[in-house]
Amino acid sequence: MALYVQKFGGTSVGSPDRIREVADHVARCRKRGDEIVLVVSAMGKETDELLRLADDVSKTKPGREMDMLVTGGERKACALVAMALTDLGIESESFTGSQAGFRTDTTHRDAKILEVNPYRIRDAVAAGKVPVVGGSQGVSTDNNVTFFGRGGSDTTAVALAHALDADACELYTDVPGVFTTDPRLVPEARKMDQISFDELLEMTATGCPKPAMRSVELARSHNVRLHVRSAFSWVPGTWVSQEASMENAIIASVTHDTSEAKMTVSGVPDKPGVAARLFRTLADAGINVDMIVQNVSADGATDISFTLPHEQVGTAEPTVAALIDEIGATGSVTDSNIGRVSLVGAGMQTNPGVAATMFETLSNAGINIEMISTSAIRISCVVREDQAEQAVTVLHAAFELHKPAEERAGF
Amino acid sequence: MALYVQKFGGTSVGSPDRIREVADHVARCRKRGDEIVLVVSAMGKETDELLRLADDVSKTKPGREMDMLVTGGERKACALVAMALTDLGIESESFTGSQAGFRTDTTHRDAKILEVNPYRIRDAVAAGKVPVVGGSQGVSTDNNVTFFGRGGSDTTAVALAHALDADACELYTDVPGVFTTDPRLVPEARKMDQISFDELLEMTATGCPKPAMRSVELARSHNVRLHVRSAFSWVPGTWVSQEASMENAIIASVTHDTSEAKMTVSGVPDKPGVAARLFRTLADAGINVDMIVQNVSADGATDISFTLPHEQVGTAEPTVAALIDEIGATGSVTDSNIGRVSLVGAGMQTNPGVAATMFETLSNAGINIEMISTSAIRISCVVREDQAEQAVTVLHAAFELHKPAEERAGF
Repeated sequence: MALYVQKFGGTSVGSPDRIREVADHVARCRKRGDEIVLVVSAMGKETDELLRLADDVSKTKPGREMDMLVTGGERKACALVAMALTDLGIESESFTGSQAGFRTDTTHRDAKILEVNPYRIRDAVAAGKVPVVGGSQGVSTDNNVTFFGRGGSDTTAVALAHALDADACELYTDVPGVFTTDPRLVPEARKMDQISFDELLEMTATGCPKPAMRSVELARSHNVRLHVRSAFSWVPGTWVSQEASMENAIIASVTHDTSEAKMTVSGVPDKPGVAARLFRTLADAGINVDMIVQNVSADGATDISFTLPHEQVGTAEPTVAALIDEIGATGSVTDSNIGRVSLVGAGMQTNPGVAATMFETLSNAGINIEMISTSAIRISCVVREDQAEQAVTVLHAAFELHKPAEERAGF
Repeated sequence: MALYVQKFGGTSVGSPDRIREVADHVARCRKRGDEIVLVVSAMGKETDELLRLADDVSKTKPGREMDMLVTGGERKACALVAMALTDLGIESESFTGSQAGFRTDTTHRDAKILEVNPYRIRDAVAAGKVPVVGGSQGVSTDNNVTFFGRGGSDTTAVALAHALDADACELYTDVPGVFTTDPRLVPEARKMDQISFDELLEMTATGCPKPAMRSVELARSHNVRLHVRSAFSWVPGTWVSQEASMENAIIASVTHDTSEAKMTVSGVPDKPGVAARLFRTLADAGINVDMIVQNVSADGATDISFTLPHEQVGTAEPTVAALIDEIGATGSVTDSNIGRVSLVGAGMQTNPGVAATMFETLSNAGINIEMISTSAIRISCVVREDQAEQAVTVLHAAFELHKPAEERAGF
């Protein structure tokens, strides 16, 4: 008898019909002989609606109160799912994050889990019940309700799977698994049967929408086997574990991301401490800097470019402007129309031909590369935003990702 | 410096604008130098919407899960009110029933308070904050979320006022106070400045919609001074305390209630234990029997009539039918078109003329009386439903309730 933690996202519990379908699904898993612990997100667009309501009521929106408000969404969903299970004759109980034993720090709106002590969940499973846990929430060390942020239900599920020593954590989403690239963009995209934590981390960091990055990091730290799969389908999805995707595969996937802008600070004196001063100041202002590229120095001055989320440009621009004189730079410029295209794969490091093939493929398609950044298992190129989708398509074809790994050409 | 527990109902927090008005109101009270603890209900029709959602999802609707679901309404409202207060520079914190120290029994959907230990509320007040408590909720002895039922926020407010030893508990509603009768029906209806717990209890039991009966009972037990008043008006409402309404007043008010049906069991053998058997069986079936009248016995058989809520007729009819043979009755009949009209007043017991005047007044208006029931401070008559409003009007005039008590004629 295996124990699975199954997480269902907002779309999967978005209506009474959907909630009953989740209950049916659980009933079938139970018949198979498995023990199930559910984690659910808020229904459909409920979190957005609660945030809008807060906007309508308040300008200050204190974090403690926002968390009290927003966690109500998951709480509502878990009660409804428990009711639907009871209708099917499956004993079930809903639990808030606090009741499920999630103890967090006091950072409202983005709380970190300090400890999970799910004794009530364990008792419920032992009594033959299906516990349904409200995702993305806990109680802080000063006994206030805390929220883990958007996508936090994945984190709840992984942390719970670890604490319960579950056989696997299944993340049910509206896609059938993890693909070699976005299948809406490239119809030939293939679902991967298996992938490593590191590859999935690079993919989520570079535009693959699911699951939430933080949950993958947590799963990787505690070696919790993940199964990313479609809600309401019995077709297996993608298993994520510490093993690399496939022995022979160099490239696992192509991702793209158009959610960022690029800022370039020009004429920066090429001396120690200048870059540190710039990025410390940006970090203190809460800016999530992503790629950083420093061009080759010429005449003792250099250009530093970095990417950041579109919505933080408004904060970043005055922050950088205030630093220009102090660090002796000549100016800064923001470019909002960029896209990032990334190749991710464990075998890349030992295959230097990959980067060359990537640059050639983009060049042959008339796509100019504006920034390049690499890691052990990823190469990212910044291109014009309106060329990003074309870049994904040509790269997917060039690396033959539509074929099973063993049939692909080498590079 | 006085401490007030102020409860705002669903209409008073029904929209972002209303929520900000509540915050403004609290700000003015604080300027006056008072300490305030707020209790809030769910926004507008939210509780109804949650109940409808549960209907859509589930047939079984287990009580534990219903309570988890429904209490989310008050929780959402208290977080929003705390945000609105923070916007005005008033430090505020929201609290669930559990966080506010409400410990209850395990009767879901209708939990009873066992203990209130509001140490977090006391600490917040001592720190100069305005605590905002979600109404009608607590945590049970087995650590599950419980709901006190509809109207339970009044109960929360009274219990909290008692536990905090507050100077008064103010119940803010959508009416300016307690009236001599329904002002929508009789424009001459007068708002009473003061009334006793007993009078208000009889009034709420016979159709006066607010406040919730249970909260008045609790206030009476613990002698918590109530102030029933309009939200967003500085005009004083009606104070409720142990003192009778006004020294000279015989009649405080006329109430009416058309929410009940009448059942009559006929041909009941006039022997000991038969009525007990009937009403024990109805009680066990959860039927809230209200007025009971047994006609004078003739030929060793009698008719027993009782009133009950319309929505319980469906349960009561088969329950009674199954008993007819066993108790040797001849049959039963249900009448859904009844209205109850009641006179309430502390001086009634020592003024036998009141009943006579009431019956004469109804008779002169052509209104037939079908049942009569009396208590120390109340006389109720069941009449045809479509004559109930006329009955209220003629009684209000006959007893001169539109005049201040000292100007009224005696009876």
